[in-house]
Amino acid sequence: MATYMWTVYLAGEIHSDWRERIIEGSEDLPVEFYTPVTDHEASDMCGVEILGEEQSAFWRDRKGAGINSIRINTLIDNADIVVIRFGPKYKQWNAAFVAGYTAALGKPYITLHDEEHDHALKEVDASARATARTPEQVVDILKYVMLK
Amino acid sequence: MATYMWTVYLAGEIHSDWRERIIEGSEDLPVEFYTPVTDHEASDMCGVEILGEEQSAFWRDRKGAGINSIRINTLIDNADIVVIRFGPKYKQWNAAFVAGYTAALGKPYITLHDEEHDHALKEVDASARATARTPEQVVDILKYVMLK
Amino acid sequence: MATYMWTVYLAGEIHSDWRERIIEGSEDLPVEFYTPVTDHEASDMCGVEILGEEQSAFWRDRKGAGINSIRINTLIDNADIVVIRFGPKYKQWNAAFVAGYTAALGKPYITLHDEEHDHALKEVDASARATARTPEQVVDILKYVMLK
Amino acid sequence: MATYMWTVYLAGEIHSDWRERIIEGSEDLPVEFYTPVTDHEASDMCGVEILGEEQSAFWRDRKGAGINSIRINTLIDNADIVVIRFGPKYKQWNAAFVAGYTAALGKPYITLHDEEHDHALKEVDASARATARTPEQVVDILKYVMLK
Amino acid sequence: MATYMWTVYLAGEIHSDWRERIIEGSEDLPVEFYTPVTDHEASDMCGVEILGEEQSAFWRDRKGAGINSIRINTLIDNADIVVIRFGPKYKQWNAAFVAGYTAALGKPYITLHDEEHDHALKEVDASARATARTPEQVVDILKYVMLK
Amino acid sequence: MATYMWTVYLAGEIHSDWRERIIEGSEDLPVEFYTPVTDHEASDMCGVEILGEEQSAFWRDRKGAGINSIRINTLIDNADIVVIRFGPKYKQWNAAFVAGYTAALGKPYITLHDEEHDHALKEVDASARATARTPEQVVDILKYVMLK
Amino acid sequence: MATYMWTVYLAGEIHSDWRERIIEGSEDLPVEFYTPVTDHEASDMCGVEILGEEQSAFWRDRKGAGINSIRINTLIDNADIVVIRFGPKYKQWNAAFVAGYTAALGKPYITLHDEEHDHALKEVDASARATARTPEQVVDILKYVMLK
Amino acid sequence: MATYMWTVYLAGEIHSDWRERIIEGSEDLPVEFYTPVTDHEASDMCGVEILGEEQSAFWRDRKGAGINSIRINTLIDNADIVVIRFGPKYKQWNAAFVAGYTAALGKPYITLHDEEHDHALKEVDASARATARTPEQVVDILKYVMLK
Repeated sequence: MATYMWTVYLAGEIHSDWRERIIEGSEDLPVEFYTPVTDHEASDMCGVEILGEEQSAFWRDRKGAGINSIRINTLIDNADIVVIRFGPKYKQWNAAFVAGYTAALGKPYITLHDEEHDHALKEVDASARATARTPEQVVDILKYVMLK
Repeated sequence: MATYMWTVYLAGEIHSDWRERIIEGSEDLPVEFYTPVTDHEASDMCGVEILGEEQSAFWRDRKGAGINSIRINTLIDNADIVVIRFGPKYKQWNAAFVAGYTAALGKPYITLHDEEHDHALKEVDASARATARTPEQVVDILKYVMLK
Repeated sequence: MATYMWTVYLAGEIHSDWRERIIEGSEDLPVEFYTPVTDHEASDMCGVEILGEEQSAFWRDRKGAGINSIRINTLIDNADIVVIRFGPKYKQWNAAFVAGYTAALGKPYITLHDEEHDHALKEVDASARATARTPEQVVDILKYVMLK
Repeated sequence: MATYMWTVYLAGEIHSDWRERIIEGSEDLPVEFYTPVTDHEASDMCGVEILGEEQSAFWRDRKGAGINSIRINTLIDNADIVVIRFGPKYKQWNAAFVAGYTAALGKPYITLHDEEHDHALKEVDASARATARTPEQVVDILKYVMLK
Repeated sequence: MATYMWTVYLAGEIHSDWRERIIEGSEDLPVEFYTPVTDHEASDMCGVEILGEEQSAFWRDRKGAGINSIRINTLIDNADIVVIRFGPKYKQWNAAFVAGYTAALGKPYITLHDEEHDHALKEVDASARATARTPEQVVDILKYVMLK
Repeated sequence: MATYMWTVYLAGEIHSDWRERIIEGSEDLPVEFYTPVTDHEASDMCGVEILGEEQSAFWRDRKGAGINSIRINTLIDNADIVVIRFGPKYKQWNAAFVAGYTAALGKPYITLHDEEHDHALKEVDASARATARTPEQVVDILKYVMLK
Repeated sequence: MATYMWTVYLAGEIHSDWRERIIEGSEDLPVEFYTPVTDHEASDMCGVEILGEEQSAFWRDRKGAGINSIRINTLIDNADIVVIRFGPKYKQWNAAFVAGYTAALGKPYITLHDEEHDHALKEVDASARATARTPEQVVDILKYVMLK
Repeated sequence: MATYMWTVYLAGEIHSDWRERIIEGSEDLPVEFYTPVTDHEASDMCGVEILGEEQSAFWRDRKGAGINSIRINTLIDNADIVVIRFGPKYKQWNAAFVAGYTAALGKPYITLHDEEHDHALKEVDASARATARTPEQVVDILKYVMLK
């Protein structure tokens, strides 16, 4: 049997080390990981820094979101699996947006969040292939899927 | 010129009268409106009420979300335009999920929310065709699009 | 709010009255039901009856299956919801084939079967929006989805 | 003329050595084979082993089927050809589900089963490009398709 | 059960009365038939008659084929079933072109031709759902598919 | 034979009476015509009039273009045929954008322009089904396609 | 600028040396060529040789066409460009079938045939990107497209 | 984290050195650039040079545009990002055509043009992910998207 080289995109929360824990835990797996830009400041300011200042906050955000979407859309379209992390804080609407986008493509995704958000995320989880509570569980899923 | 009969799906927040205000304001337009089930209690409990009780809250939500998704997916797939309302409270991840799903279909959607959420919704707004602040602005957009 | 006219395709087992029970239970709903040819003898023999006898059973089946697929594919492609019944007897591989075909289209389906088949149908149920045990539960789901 | 590197996914029955016979017979062909997890126990238990125990057998199966679907869907989507084996025992609804899913994608598949199942598999065979009786016939088809 | 209104496109040979025989035989069926322009002279000359003369026969044909393709593509895209007739004379490459186009859409088609063309049409027939020898057999297939 | 009800979208130049001439010439045809908003001032200002003033001309245009795209995309997606007029003046990049968008959908379109623009429009014309010089020629094409 | 590695599928007539002339003429190009099985006898008999004899010629052809379609569909789906040759003899309906299939995928193809077939191939040529008269012209097109 | 190898297609104006400036500025990026044929004379004459002279300028252009479209369509379909430059002169309808084609594919594109064309390009810019004024800004966007 051949070894498939998997591509996984890690979307969502950028304030904890969940990405590192998944990547480190997967170092023996045939997998390439991709992420959005996780430098919060850079992500927010890329539009105006590159294309010039805006007076209105709305259009400043628009410029940045447009540029970030080039990376996000390409890497999701190119991924076999998307892992989407919802952290304990903030609205994180972009993470739920990624889930809906991925679901419409018929591409499998795994959610990663605490039990306290189960009810609020029920539509997002219902389209997921699995809901994990820890990065280590995500690693175990990847190990099973890729190696067994 | 012929009159196109438009189909609009009204997604998101269910605690204020924004849907009624849009529907009433559009009564002279060639449009049919559709919505998710907006009875919160019924929406949460439909799974276990129809298919039997669950001990775990997670699977109770799953059962309900599965049934609701039949309606939601069909009506979005059938809509020309989706309007997505984000209210002042709650996580509303299902609304952002609808936005991502609609964006991936290449179908136009309009967001409706206050300025305070602009930054958190920047990815969702960047894929929207318009961001309105009031239901009346949504009505004005529909009037322009359908009647002009 | 407008009333959506739903289209439901009833696939699977043809030896009990489950279709009649769903159709009768739904008579107040805005729904049109479609089915495969449920006359077993006619379904098996249509190929050779119309296009001429075959010496081999394999090609006799092929002729019939080809003609039946015209109806089945068209009506599934045209449906909003597919209900798939697995009865207590026979292999019923055509029902599972319909489930896989419907899943790949991203179209919602509901499975209807007894608990004893849960394990054997786990992949089929995992892609379903709901698993019902009785035709009356299917009717309740349709009522909720179409009327609430 | 260039040599195309083919990708073949081997779906279905896991109780006999048909996969090994195809893989060994194809060792001189430009082909990479992929399979589902064929360790029955691991496949059944992966959900609860990784994500935690469930009281109900239905949800235990759901958890496992969700995780297995990540592998199955990705490898089918990535395959040029799917070979689907129906053995002499069990319902094997997942194999028929794979056939329907593959058919809807317009991707070629080959069925592999004994004559006794011809009638029950007539819809599945009618969408297949070929129906083989032995793994050696499948190898001969692959040789013809890839080398001639 | 509801009555589905079927749409059938009748493609191919224009020198015999096969279309009339199918349409007349189907007068009690819930079906709408569409055809290409079957006036040979008009079909050949439409390009230059409407858009102006051409010196080269190649471009005269191109102009006509472009206009005819507007009708053909739209009506095939809109059809549930395509019936494709190959007559005893001429190359009829446009009929085989329609078959390939329809096959790629995953849309069911029926071929109608004499046994003498079986070998030359083997690829076209292999993707068909049925191969009929007479218009009356096509009518019988439509009756079975639409009425049973 | 049934009568197909055609849908035609009239895109492009808004400074001459070409739309009226096509619609009037087609009054006996089974066709419904749709157009973009052809009131130039309204089209330019709809964004800021409905959603509030902008200081920058760039974002003023963006707001209007977003709203107009709701109408344009929906009506093109819903059309059987698109007619695209390039007039003697202005850049008319939106007309060429519509042509590219329509081409990518595999939907037939007809261009309408003078000979002087042939070279500049060669890529746009190469994907068109016909290039007409006068609205009357477009009417003749529609008559041929719809009535013959 | 990077060098794109092109994939070209050479479909159609198998009685002359046109494939060799194109492949030899392109030896300095960044291109991989693929073809159907061009051994006429092997192509006709593959079905019954591998899967067992048939009494009826119709089903013998079906078996072979099914197996050949695995190769043909995969290689067309994988190609950037399809070249389709119509020779002076035979019906060659499979070549026109390939053209229709390729057109429906929106994939570019080049036809290669003598002027005497222009009228019979007008629909096939109208969807082609170019019509060549000699293999050397095809090589020149590939050189221009790949190297310029 | 893995390094994604990006593919960028540079479309539009061929009279200034903007492509060179982007390619040189990106030499440390993981990116492969592709372009249309930028030799104006060759691009205009390829049709008649390879396939033979035409008396009418319209068909001479058609022949060339058909051949060029093989390259353009393939490279856009294969690109992750399209950059589209509108220069100060000429109609450049082919550039706007590429934008519409790319937008319909849901593929991200960046426009590059001076402020004076903002109003005429408002529909094209509204579907773009970013509008740059200089090649260096495009490089900065690529650096951010690919390296951050």
